[in-house]
Amino acid sequence: MDPFLEAAIDEARQGLSEEGIPIGSVLVIDGEIVARGHNRRIQKGSVILHAEMDCLEKAGRRTAADYSRSILYSTLSPCDMCSGAALLYKIPKIVVGENRTFQGPESYVRSRGVDLEILDDPDCIAMMQSFIAERPELWNEDIGLPN
Amino acid sequence: MDPFLEAAIDEARQGLSEEGIPIGSVLVIDGEIVARGHNRRIQKGSVILHAEMDCLEKAGRRTAADYSRSILYSTLSPCDMCSGAALLYKIPKIVVGENRTFQGPESYVRSRGVDLEILDDPDCIAMMQSFIAERPELWNEDIGLPN
Repeated sequence: MDPFLEAAIDEARQGLSEEGIPIGSVLVIDGEIVARGHNRRIQKGSVILHAEMDCLEKAGRRTAADYSRSILYSTLSPCDMCSGAALLYKIPKIVVGENRTFQGPESYVRSRGVDLEILDDPDCIAMMQSFIAERPELWNEDIGLPN
Repeated sequence: MDPFLEAAIDEARQGLSEEGIPIGSVLVIDGEIVARGHNRRIQKGSVILHAEMDCLEKAGRRTAADYSRSILYSTLSPCDMCSGAALLYKIPKIVVGENRTFQGPESYVRSRGVDLEILDDPDCIAMMQSFIAERPELWNEDIGLPN
């Protein structure tokens, strides 16, 4: 398996072990993981710390040159907010574990020039399917849907 | 002046008094301000706490019904990230102090059904023009541009 997706899955599992939403993310620059993150809605009562946002925040203040060489990994298709963060910082490539259980604004993100790759990973799919079945109200809250 | 824009400007001035980037935001539900925020890049070394994100985070975990009755105010046209956060939570209306010094993805946001109103407020314009002239490197960093 892609070692960076594996690291993102490890983050998702870390979230699950904290009774959080199992979505993980890593930021890669020049072939090295510079930051890791996972969804913190439950852990921090946060509405902005989706996995990708947590990861970008942990990466700290970076130059445009850094972002221009980066790849953002996420176990799940990034939502409007996380896609927007990637667009703001002009991250040229996003690699996604799966987009069967949720799809962000993929065609819009591609229309803005981002190389968005979907790996359709069975572990990512199984993890989200199981979580959504067990905690539908939490999942709906995380993606802005009514309960 | 619109009292909610005035509250957002107060937040922007608070940011300036902390040597931060002078952009402020408030979230209004049923005619009441439920949260206030301002850009915290400098204050917290944060790449995700733009004014609108800080405000949404301070508003805490809300139901979709709450967001559906909300209005997000910002002194400046929301960037890709902040626009994306508003889209995620299906905030139906965004009121913006000005969009002369910066424009986010306004036509895309409108195409997603958001009522985006631009007030073209002279105080908001003057505040950003002055800040950008004084701290161009910080401003470029905040909107993902090279220095």
